[in-house]
Amino acid sequence: MAYEYLLDQPLTPWMNHPGKDGDVVLSSRIRLARNICELPFPNKAEAAQLSKVEDKLEGLTEDLMADTGDDYLFIALDKLTSLERNVLVEKHIISPNHAAQPENRALLVSNDATVSVMVNEEDHLRIQCMFPGLNLGDALVLAHKIDDTLEARLDIAFNEQLGYLTACPTNLGTGLRASVMMHLPGLVFTRQITRIVNAATQLGLAVRGFYGEGTEAAGNIFQISNQITLGFSEQEIIDNLTSAVRQILNHERSARQALYKHSPVALTDKVWRAYGLLKYARSMSGQEALSLLSELRLGVDLNIIDAIRPALFNELVVTTRPNYLQKIIGNDDLNQSELNRFRAQLIRETLEAMDQDNAKGVV
Amino acid sequence: MAYEYLLDQPLTPWMNHPGKDGDVVLSSRIRLARNICELPFPNKAEAAQLSKVEDKLEGLTEDLMADTGDDYLFIALDKLTSLERNVLVEKHIISPNHAAQPENRALLVSNDATVSVMVNEEDHLRIQCMFPGLNLGDALVLAHKIDDTLEARLDIAFNEQLGYLTACPTNLGTGLRASVMMHLPGLVFTRQITRIVNAATQLGLAVRGFYGEGTEAAGNIFQISNQITLGFSEQEIIDNLTSAVRQILNHERSARQALYKHSPVALTDKVWRAYGLLKYARSMSGQEALSLLSELRLGVDLNIIDAIRPALFNELVVTTRPNYLQKIIGNDDLNQSELNRFRAQLIRETLEAMDQDNAKGVV
Repeated sequence: MAYEYLLDQPLTPWMNHPGKDGDVVLSSRIRLARNICELPFPNKAEAAQLSKVEDKLEGLTEDLMADTGDDYLFIALDKLTSLERNVLVEKHIISPNHAAQPENRALLVSNDATVSVMVNEEDHLRIQCMFPGLNLGDALVLAHKIDDTLEARLDIAFNEQLGYLTACPTNLGTGLRASVMMHLPGLVFTRQITRIVNAATQLGLAVRGFYGEGTEAAGNIFQISNQITLGFSEQEIIDNLTSAVRQILNHERSARQALYKHSPVALTDKVWRAYGLLKYARSMSGQEALSLLSELRLGVDLNIIDAIRPALFNELVVTTRPNYLQKIIGNDDLNQSELNRFRAQLIRETLEAMDQDNAKGVV
Repeated sequence: MAYEYLLDQPLTPWMNHPGKDGDVVLSSRIRLARNICELPFPNKAEAAQLSKVEDKLEGLTEDLMADTGDDYLFIALDKLTSLERNVLVEKHIISPNHAAQPENRALLVSNDATVSVMVNEEDHLRIQCMFPGLNLGDALVLAHKIDDTLEARLDIAFNEQLGYLTACPTNLGTGLRASVMMHLPGLVFTRQITRIVNAATQLGLAVRGFYGEGTEAAGNIFQISNQITLGFSEQEIIDNLTSAVRQILNHERSARQALYKHSPVALTDKVWRAYGLLKYARSMSGQEALSLLSELRLGVDLNIIDAIRPALFNELVVTTRPNYLQKIIGNDDLNQSELNRFRAQLIRETLEAMDQDNAKGVV
């Protein structure tokens, strides 16, 4: 696998098939924070020490392949352009912080991007496993497998009382962050979302917009994760999160049914208008694209509109992001209005290609 | 010709082909107010007197046919349902006042609705001639021809000093009102319309929305007419109006070109979004339909969008009006939300039929 593949494919392969409860839960992610003994945390480390961490990890690429049977790629982030790093952020493979400081930072990634290890982000290692749908269990099993391979060959900082030691005390203990990406248009349109977010927060969960902290919930996509990493076992953490997610999932499904039952015309109209605008607009902001795609996806999930591939939403949500868009156009110097034009064109062409596939019976 | 034809056809035939300067001027209309001597004006007349006027006019139907070579239909307004009368208002064949008080009111109308004579509206006779595009001259010639036929057989109230006597002094003299219907999206979008309306008013012209006084300029359609009927010859009145209309027409064309030159993407986007919404919406208010149709028509006139019949705008502007809509559905008891649904459906079906005609090469 060349790294260009990772950058150019709109979807990491796991996004192509919906997982369990895929009508509401887009993806599940497990992240384990790990640090290597006797080396300072990245924010206190000197270049030579960071480099040492990088070297150790690059040396483990073969072991990971042997243990998992998957291909892995080791990428030094400063070998990528800024645009390429930002595409990886948009694809949720690395974090914005990781992309912003590329010197002596690296990425170990499996060929289908199910597994990625950020090297020298806030911690020396951040093992991430992503699965489609609601599936934190399988993601945890896989993360443990990767962790076992790494821990067998590295001296990982662990304290009997505190658990895994991490740069930030909020990650101390299990070092585990579990998160799910949920599509919640029903709760947004019925104005129940604030109540649900407040309830989740009271349960010790964090609710964020599509691209993590500080971003709005564009496209009605919310990321829900545990805040507490200490004092609970890993299993308890993912059980708690899964249970809360199931409740939100049920509320979302009820909200969708209620919307459809009480205002079938208004909802159907909203969905088809979104389709009409996506299909014909000549200029579109990223924010508007996400909103309309969310409405279209809701229509697909409620069988209001057919002949739309289920993965189209996941695909366009990625391809319409500004960096990815500039990457496929091959020009990273576009202004906002040019970006908006290309975004509309890409959406139009994607929908037209789908229409033609449908006409040929290739769905 | 049966009167059902007049009601059911979306377009009066003259609307099917655009006239001179048809990109901006939708239609030209001449109206002559006439009254019969020794009978009180309609608002002072008793039923028997109104009835006498009706009888006289019905008796002249054959003469009109003989003199013009066209078929004419005499319709007593109280023989129509309220819905049918309102459809005639929406088609600009009779006035709202005429429709509201149907007893002893009638309509004499030519088979293509180019000529209509309202009987016992504000005056005993209101002769109206409508032509597509900017063509007040031909409309006046035809109106004179009808007037000659009627005056040869009726004793029309005329005073050497005051001219034709009319119920309202604002119509005294020539009894002539000339008006044109203009589509002015360029002036509206570039915010020049207020200045233009003020200038026209200072020239002694009246500027109104699509359905006469007191209505907003829905669909960016404006009706421009003379206010003064006394002290100028008929020719001077229509020359003045035509000259003002030509100026507005030039401003409108410049505004359209400027819009296209300075914001081609924004304008193209607006036009295609209008098309997308018209093509897919499931519910649409009459006001929104007119706005979107106006944007689409602008796109057709600027060659931004093709494969749209030029007459589509004129047709849908009529068919999406609430009374016409109820007439073709065959249910005059629809609530607003049902009307909005049927309106969206009718627009969708019209555009789909056009797509299919285009696919067959029948444009």
